Amino acid sequence: MNPTELIGYAAAVLTTIAFVPQVVHTWRMRSGRGISLGMYATFTSGVGLWLAYGILLNAWPIIVANVITLTLALSVLALKIRYR
Amino acid sequence: MNPTELIGYAAAVLTTIAFVPQVVHTWRMRSGRGISLGMYATFTSGVGLWLAYGILLNAWPIIVANVITLTLALSVLALKIRYR
Repeated sequence: MNPTELIGYAAAVLTTIAFVPQVVHTWRMRSGRGISLGMYATFTSGVGLWLAYGILLNAWPIIVANVITLTLALSVLALKIRYR
Repeated sequence: MNPTELIGYAAAVLTTIAFVPQVVHTWRMRSGRGISLGMYATFTSGVGLWLAYGILLNAWPIIVANVITLTLALSVLALKIRYR
């Protein structure tokens, strides 16, 4: 793997796992007040389209990263709706 | 532009502009309590690496999208640190 590819993979891992602490934080607070519904509605729609794009291109790195991100972002969205 | 490319651009636009309502929401609330510091620290690092990746590949769509996302994510991070 060349250095540029390595940077790309590190970027993908960081922007994907970043949502884990937000899920934990919102779950522990039992409150979604600080979370923007508009952000997570827009973001999950966008990640859903990235997933469709990956499927259409048969690009597994895009598919895998976006399935994980979609699961995490939907979890934040669900917690926001559940706890307001 | 073919339909797959169109889906990719729509995905990029949505996942980029998604942070605008979060910036507005956190700014209006004058509170960053609901925001995970871990998420925004990790996410801005990842977006910084995506930007480096775009620069190394001289890929303008990656550069433009990530400069905008980095600006917005850093704004949320700054509001989180400012208002706690």
